[in-house]
Amino acid sequence: MITLHTWTTPNGRKPIILLEELGTPYDIVPVDLGKRQQFEPAFLAISPNNKIPALVDDDAAGGPLTMFESGAILTYLAEKHGQFLPAAGLARYRVLTWLHWQIGGVGPMFGQLGFFSRQDNADATGHFVEEAERLLGVLDKQLSKGAYLAGDEYSIADIAVYPWIMAATERLGSQLGATLESKASLQRWLGLVGGRPAVRKAMAWAPG
Amino acid sequence: MITLHTWTTPNGRKPIILLEELGTPYDIVPVDLGKRQQFEPAFLAISPNNKIPALVDDDAAGGPLTMFESGAILTYLAEKHGQFLPAAGLARYRVLTWLHWQIGGVGPMFGQLGFFSRQDNADATGHFVEEAERLLGVLDKQLSKGAYLAGDEYSIADIAVYPWIMAATERLGSQLGATLESKASLQRWLGLVGGRPAVRKAMAWAPG
Ligand SMILES: N[C@@H](CCC(=O)N[C@@H](CS)C(=O)NCC(=O)O)C(=O)O
Ligand SMILES: N[C@@H](CCC(=O)N[C@@H](CS)C(=O)NCC(=O)O)C(=O)O
Repeated sequence: MITLHTWTTPNGRKPIILLEELGTPYDIVPVDLGKRQQFEPAFLAISPNNKIPALVDDDAAGGPLTMFESGAILTYLAEKHGQFLPAAGLARYRVLTWLHWQIGGVGPMFGQLGFFSRQDNADATGHFVEEAERLLGVLDKQLSKGAYLAGDEYSIADIAVYPWIMAATERLGSQLGATLESKASLQRWLGLVGGRPAVRKAMAWAPG
Repeated sequence: MITLHTWTTPNGRKPIILLEELGTPYDIVPVDLGKRQQFEPAFLAISPNNKIPALVDDDAAGGPLTMFESGAILTYLAEKHGQFLPAAGLARYRVLTWLHWQIGGVGPMFGQLGFFSRQDNADATGHFVEEAERLLGVLDKQLSKGAYLAGDEYSIADIAVYPWIMAATERLGSQLGATLESKASLQRWLGLVGGRPAVRKAMAWAPG
């Protein structure tokens, strides 16, 4: 069985989207970040970086697998099922390029923007607004070239980016709202990805 | 032929290390960030996120390959040559976990610490010092469990992290020096990785 340790944040929803797309059975163990459960020893034994998501797969090839980092988890599940990440060729590395772009760019920069916009630090907020706007420009331009982030096929790159753009739309409207609305290709893609039943279900997930 | 578009920064040195380890021929095109060459149209055509490193492989399976993002590039080269990233099994996903931990954590957080330590913003600097210290603690603990970051084998995870720790040692000494020196497993690993001829050559690379 696959057990996903996660929470209702953008990084936390990514593997839920993929598991729903794959239609494979899984359990969720909620890690309540508001209660600082990411620092509990049982969770740290799985995720020593004290962050969600983390995954345990009892039936992995080679024995029980424990891993963390959403980008690595998406890659693992995609490779296990042979879906949403081509096994070889140019298309594979287009997907990995844009997956890493999310992990190293959109995730940390939007995350820090969220952090500083709740502090009283106009300079730092301004710096991360600028960086977020730049990234949204790169994203919109890329989405003007094909239906999905890495080309014509929906992939784990789309799955990685989508929850971050939705979170920005919902929670960073005063900083990024006008920029988000002005990006036509991005808006088209949000509709396309957001219309998928798996995405809808994962975005609505809440601990029960 | 492989052409690497890069510069003398931590992210820029990672693929040089791997190419040297693989002993495969490559050319380097320097992208002088000081001269803002990352914004020149010819470079943006390869790397639309205006960052180094980027890679072009004329002889890739499936046709000429263009990609960016250091983590994706390391994964591509490791998969092409079947080295420094196991093809399957638990060890593969340990490597990908720690690779992504570098891409999403160490890289952006140390990078932002560097940025804010050159501004007059004590709060933001303090925030990123705290985060960098936390990450160094996670790293040291992991390195106390095995010779290398993902276990007993040297991998692209080590290659991704090493240049960042060296850059911190050299340039963030006033913020992180004492923390770095206090981490015994980390220091052992710096010696181990830093003693490799490929690493030494890549760390010494400078545009000619
Ligand atoms: N690079 C990591 C980032 C994960 C991350 O930032 N998780 C956040 C929630 S979205 C978290 O667990 N924060 C709790 C903490 O840092 O203490 C990934 O992609 O999985
Ligand atoms: N996530 C990217 C980050 C690359 C990155 O930050 N590159 C820096 C140099 S270390 C850069 O090109 N900066 C120039 C710019 O942002 O304009 C990667 O791992 O490749």
